[in-house]
Amino acid sequence: MKTTNKKTKILITGAGLCGSLLGLRLAQRGYHVDILEKRPDMRKAVVDGGRSINLALSDRGLAGLKLVGLEEKVRELCIPMHGRLIHDVEGNTFASNYSGREGEYINSISREELNKLLLDEADKYEDVQIDFDDAVTSVDLKNASVTYHDSETDTEKEWKADIVLGTDGAGSVVRKAMMKQRDFLFSHSMNWLPHGYKELNIPPTENGKWRIEKNFLHIWPRGGFMLIALPNLDGSFTLTLFMQYDGDGPAFNKIKTDQEITDFFTTYFKDVMEHIPDLIEQYHTNPAPPLGTVRCSPWTAYGTSLIMGDAAHAIVPFYGQGMNASFEDVVVFDEMLDQHENWSDAFDAFSKTRKPDADAIADLALDNFVEMRDSVANPNFQLKRQIEMRLEAAFAKAEYQSKYSLVTFPEEGISYREAMLKGRAQDKAILWLLENDQIKVEDDLNDLLKSIQQKTEEVLWLRG
Amino acid sequence: MKTTNKKTKILITGAGLCGSLLGLRLAQRGYHVDILEKRPDMRKAVVDGGRSINLALSDRGLAGLKLVGLEEKVRELCIPMHGRLIHDVEGNTFASNYSGREGEYINSISREELNKLLLDEADKYEDVQIDFDDAVTSVDLKNASVTYHDSETDTEKEWKADIVLGTDGAGSVVRKAMMKQRDFLFSHSMNWLPHGYKELNIPPTENGKWRIEKNFLHIWPRGGFMLIALPNLDGSFTLTLFMQYDGDGPAFNKIKTDQEITDFFTTYFKDVMEHIPDLIEQYHTNPAPPLGTVRCSPWTAYGTSLIMGDAAHAIVPFYGQGMNASFEDVVVFDEMLDQHENWSDAFDAFSKTRKPDADAIADLALDNFVEMRDSVANPNFQLKRQIEMRLEAAFAKAEYQSKYSLVTFPEEGISYREAMLKGRAQDKAILWLLENDQIKVEDDLNDLLKSIQQKTEEVLWLRG
Repeated sequence: MKTTNKKTKILITGAGLCGSLLGLRLAQRGYHVDILEKRPDMRKAVVDGGRSINLALSDRGLAGLKLVGLEEKVRELCIPMHGRLIHDVEGNTFASNYSGREGEYINSISREELNKLLLDEADKYEDVQIDFDDAVTSVDLKNASVTYHDSETDTEKEWKADIVLGTDGAGSVVRKAMMKQRDFLFSHSMNWLPHGYKELNIPPTENGKWRIEKNFLHIWPRGGFMLIALPNLDGSFTLTLFMQYDGDGPAFNKIKTDQEITDFFTTYFKDVMEHIPDLIEQYHTNPAPPLGTVRCSPWTAYGTSLIMGDAAHAIVPFYGQGMNASFEDVVVFDEMLDQHENWSDAFDAFSKTRKPDADAIADLALDNFVEMRDSVANPNFQLKRQIEMRLEAAFAKAEYQSKYSLVTFPEEGISYREAMLKGRAQDKAILWLLENDQIKVEDDLNDLLKSIQQKTEEVLWLRG
Repeated sequence: MKTTNKKTKILITGAGLCGSLLGLRLAQRGYHVDILEKRPDMRKAVVDGGRSINLALSDRGLAGLKLVGLEEKVRELCIPMHGRLIHDVEGNTFASNYSGREGEYINSISREELNKLLLDEADKYEDVQIDFDDAVTSVDLKNASVTYHDSETDTEKEWKADIVLGTDGAGSVVRKAMMKQRDFLFSHSMNWLPHGYKELNIPPTENGKWRIEKNFLHIWPRGGFMLIALPNLDGSFTLTLFMQYDGDGPAFNKIKTDQEITDFFTTYFKDVMEHIPDLIEQYHTNPAPPLGTVRCSPWTAYGTSLIMGDAAHAIVPFYGQGMNASFEDVVVFDEMLDQHENWSDAFDAFSKTRKPDADAIADLALDNFVEMRDSVANPNFQLKRQIEMRLEAAFAKAEYQSKYSLVTFPEEGISYREAMLKGRAQDKAILWLLENDQIKVEDDLNDLLKSIQQKTEEVLWLRG
């Protein structure tokens, strides 16, 4: 089917962040789009048990919002975070900036507020039709036909489209249909961490202010586990405790009673405890779901269907790139629509182009958990960050970007995969040069840059 | 349940290579073992459409056979292969030995003959009961209870055991039961290559001799695809064509007609064609199944069940290690039984210890496809092999083993994972030293060894 045919019946499954941005963009391109969403309309009902969940929004995600003309509106929902603020066990704090360059920061944003904004914007287009409370139950990929539970009539209904775009998240029903078919080889994996996560909340002060420094991503790294906090506009912080379920040392399945909870926080997070009067209640109430990585290939079937976002590549949250990767998907897919005449060609091209980048950010996110948990452990890591700050402050992006910058504040066109390969090699190069006394933090900047670039090239070759 | 309790009801699903070796070993340890096998008894019926399929047996597999006292008997079924014999498009051949040391070679062996021998040996133990034609249809892991189709009565029956050992191959029903449970997090992946494989046969000469050199693994590397051949005792060779299904260049889905088959072989494998009078018929008759890698974790559930061999870690065949890895599983599991008092502890320990090695050989096997297909491409690869041959001939194993040797002829205790890490680093080190003119093939042997060891250490650090 031709992409020039604006009457193509497009069905999107899922009106989360990715689905609503995608629907909005396709409407802007002149298509009629139907979206089925299993949850109620979050603009009318309380979702996620009323908990406030925030996310890190950075340049790749902002590019997606810019594409649909929403960058400025979204900025109003953002709280800039200029770096990590690391809290040690004694309660001391250390700041570590995300970049040595001016104006490079990440943003804390409410998942719900952002999603609502995208839904509101999509609703402005007559050609976007969103049906809430309608859960897709099965997908006939060959015929681009979807069975869903219609909440109004409480019956199973069928929806026949021309193409199905699956943005139905990590548990995607569209992906499951791809797994079940026997017409082509579908590779897939589901990998769980031994760690789960539990969200907690630091309330605002009485006059609506932030109880700890506002413009940072706070980390309490404790080796095998950690706590992080991101600020909300109302003065509260959303905390997330990442910890193993079982094993030696602290673990969710060993911290159950009031006393165990109190002991645990007193020992490891004393400075946080004083800010949360109802900590024990929150700990009991909030679940501790697992963290998994979904990979698969291809992301398209029969020329009729494509999966995007978490449906195709759910990742762990430690690089703050889950939403950003999904929004970048929409940017890349939009380019594919410019380049290809048929939907099936655009689907193929998107799947092939984007898959290596999804794999890269999945790997980077897994690595970063270790780095965050241990971020005070290796003294050479601190020296490395100092060198990188100096280089970023002194040179243009094209000359030097740290791994974090390559991923988070990329120069135009730097993919996740390039960021991973170059960033990892650079990290190893700097650490090796420090370890072997071949560079010092205070060396001449041009000499530093040259040594690091040269060793990075070698490491790229040796790691290849 | 205690491992000292010799009345433990042990059920093994699958009497293939891994299951029959495992059953035999457990009987030797004094247990009673029941085995359910879905296929007919290969000692009485024709299996695999009567095709002759052979495998490479090397030191890790031989250690498993030694454990049960069968090494000598198995040697009688083996044809030693001392190296690769590479055939170029013009029909020229080049030998490349597997090791620079005397007595280090791999063996071509018939899968069927080896399996029959293991079944015969197992049958000598009264405490081994093998039921053929009985396919397991579902597994209740918690209760160690299995439902199977009983061929005699054509009914579904249940088998209640104390422990279930799943050696039911890549499509394991036991693994699928682990995937379905919701009591613990089970990570798993199924990754397909874009290539399939088609087996063909070179018949013996009229007086039962081999038409091409007997004691080699023959390779016709052609970049994106390749043909290999392993000798059989009857003078025939089993050929395997590895080729993509679709895409640019030769592909199974583009080579269908008699003319296309003839053209393809004439262009790329002219020297093989003359040996196979019924090539076109064989090509039409034999299927081209896909090649996949199965990974999962943990390999055990509820303290009642364990998967081993291909059921836990099916790999692609390019390192000739599939069967060897499964036999080594039995050796490692046997050690776990010595070390642990409870079956569940032995299962946990086996799963944790063995999983990194299974991942390593899976990765190595994938890498080796590229090396085999391109084995004549890079001139530095040839120089590297010459250097490695010299080092292996001059020094003890502890001082130098190539990646191939570390994997295939390991010094006692070298795991697949150690072989992968060290072997890959060594390869990169030698290629880097050659590329940067820091070593030459004819250098003093002690100097060569020192340079390579030093650079290897650095590469290990930089790749880590």
